[in-house]
Amino acid sequence: MNVLVLGAGQLARMMALASKPLNIEVRAFDVGSNQVVDPLSPNVTFGDLAGGIEFSDAITAEFEHISHDVLAICEASGKLYPSSQSIKTGGDRRLEKTLLENANVANAKHKVVATREQFDEAINTLTLPLILKSALAGYDGKGQWRLKDLSQADAIWQDIETFIKEDTSDQPQAVVVEQMIPFDREVSMVGVRSKNGETQSYPLTENHHTNGVLSVSLAVDEYQSLQKQASEAFEKVANALDYVGVLAIEFFQVGDSLLVNEIAPRVHNSGHWTQQGSDTCQFENHVRAVCNLPIGSTDLVRPTAMVNILGADKVPDDVLAIPSVSVHWYGKTKRAGRKMGHINVCGKNKPELLTRLTKLASILPECDFPEVAEYINQLT
Amino acid sequence: MNVLVLGAGQLARMMALASKPLNIEVRAFDVGSNQVVDPLSPNVTFGDLAGGIEFSDAITAEFEHISHDVLAICEASGKLYPSSQSIKTGGDRRLEKTLLENANVANAKHKVVATREQFDEAINTLTLPLILKSALAGYDGKGQWRLKDLSQADAIWQDIETFIKEDTSDQPQAVVVEQMIPFDREVSMVGVRSKNGETQSYPLTENHHTNGVLSVSLAVDEYQSLQKQASEAFEKVANALDYVGVLAIEFFQVGDSLLVNEIAPRVHNSGHWTQQGSDTCQFENHVRAVCNLPIGSTDLVRPTAMVNILGADKVPDDVLAIPSVSVHWYGKTKRAGRKMGHINVCGKNKPELLTRLTKLASILPECDFPEVAEYINQLT
Repeated sequence: MNVLVLGAGQLARMMALASKPLNIEVRAFDVGSNQVVDPLSPNVTFGDLAGGIEFSDAITAEFEHISHDVLAICEASGKLYPSSQSIKTGGDRRLEKTLLENANVANAKHKVVATREQFDEAINTLTLPLILKSALAGYDGKGQWRLKDLSQADAIWQDIETFIKEDTSDQPQAVVVEQMIPFDREVSMVGVRSKNGETQSYPLTENHHTNGVLSVSLAVDEYQSLQKQASEAFEKVANALDYVGVLAIEFFQVGDSLLVNEIAPRVHNSGHWTQQGSDTCQFENHVRAVCNLPIGSTDLVRPTAMVNILGADKVPDDVLAIPSVSVHWYGKTKRAGRKMGHINVCGKNKPELLTRLTKLASILPECDFPEVAEYINQLT
Repeated sequence: MNVLVLGAGQLARMMALASKPLNIEVRAFDVGSNQVVDPLSPNVTFGDLAGGIEFSDAITAEFEHISHDVLAICEASGKLYPSSQSIKTGGDRRLEKTLLENANVANAKHKVVATREQFDEAINTLTLPLILKSALAGYDGKGQWRLKDLSQADAIWQDIETFIKEDTSDQPQAVVVEQMIPFDREVSMVGVRSKNGETQSYPLTENHHTNGVLSVSLAVDEYQSLQKQASEAFEKVANALDYVGVLAIEFFQVGDSLLVNEIAPRVHNSGHWTQQGSDTCQFENHVRAVCNLPIGSTDLVRPTAMVNILGADKVPDDVLAIPSVSVHWYGKTKRAGRKMGHINVCGKNKPELLTRLTKLASILPECDFPEVAEYINQLT
């Protein structure tokens, strides 16, 4: 079978790696060059989108910010999974919030704002502090503002106006104003839904962000009641979208409750630990689902953590000498802050995992992995 | 880093898959076409052997029957690991037997035979029944004869003479006559040795052969004293060869003792279970070793079995619905008896593994998997 992935980054690459053993060939549509490429050898090209659609038995996406024209062409082929509506929902906070409300899934109080009047109304209706997020295209901390005090309103609004003016997306831009959640922790879940509606959820993952970007994920499967809440939220969202494939949900944990922060209609950075930590990794399960193959068990095999490699193109060789460490590079050119790879670490139980993680943190240079050692040390 | 593999079959392919995450590019020299190819996309070619040597930081092999000319050229580059002597030893039972004797590793009593006189002398010296194996190129049951009764000697010798006459290898052919071992079980071990002489052994694997070809391997890590014997044999052999990379040893178990049957200077079919069952799979560890990276832990993560797919190009989709089942296809064209892929199955303990294996055996068609259900059923 053949799969075309919209987007030619590391997620397409890891889908391709997970698919080869299944005799499923993955090609990737690079939205920058408008070329179909081999995600494992990006210099090998296969022509344009039309050829890629012709080649494929199934089409999927590795990111949600894809032009609606491309989505429409792919959907018309009858091969696109998840649907363009699912992908668009992940790429537009307005649709996302409507989905969560309609599916009756807990999330932060919010207002959609496109004008100064709506902004002022939101400030009056919601309780400060507020977090403002662009409806389209913002991620990893970009296109976000925090309003803690009324005195900041003018300056922030000016910033937002500039941001909206400079926006190059093919849809009208806006800002979603949310009441800031005083959360205890950020957790996330990836789950998978098959064409026949079967769902499976992976264990909840605890996430640590550095400068707004995910730096460490920890999957230990020890949060029974939260796991149940998260699985239910996943099922509601996935069923509401008639979703096919892997979908990620980021949650704020407030006491014993979870509120959805956002969804991602794709495999997700916080699910990379599944490559070593689960029966079937998220990449294989996504491809199985869009190819209408049985989805695989999402059980935790053993406690696993993932550490992102951001902006660095090497780590000390000694990292590989730690038992159960797997390094995953994406074959990308070095750029400050860029997601260059990740490191998975496992242990037969949580203490063994933490011992290995602590060892790892002591080897990784602090300059390339800020806050990582600090975060890991407070876990032990 | 770049690695050239001599041989472009499934072992090179799985080395390439295991290497991509380490940013190690693997190319393969196809000894049939004399072309260097992408083992993940065999239609993509990169020119001749000289270019492949130039491209590589390290050169290794996926099989032992490589022409001595090619080995000499590769060795001259200073990049070949393991050494040509190690590879030749795996490809010539005469050298192999000499190695085992010199390294003081237990193996079957034997004689090297090239003439009828030597044959008769071997019959007189050794105790019947005998097994006769071609010194070069025989594997998977080819180039083997069994002599149970003196009356068979003339017919077998005629067969052997024809075999030797028709042999196309670049070395003089002969036959190694061994006393047949009344073994209880065939087991094997893969281990890895680094450039600085560090060794690690994987858990012993129990192997079942069907029509002389490996059909099922089982790794459960429950043979402490045998494990110790096997690790010692591995270390003796690997040290004697100053070996670098993964090496496999097949043993006959007789009571509580192990006798070496044969060695393979490469990753091995009976080690495919390590992809799901071990901390670091044999393919990654081989590449780590030849690239002078730290070798990874060879611990068993959980009991795992491997079932070979021989001559079939599909299995029922339901196979994928069994938890912890991973299917690995090699992307090869169907041919009777050909190694087309394998299936790995894991369980958190042996009973769970056996339950899943039994389920698997009930789904796999008997015509494509002869004896597999029978073997699995007698395990439970």
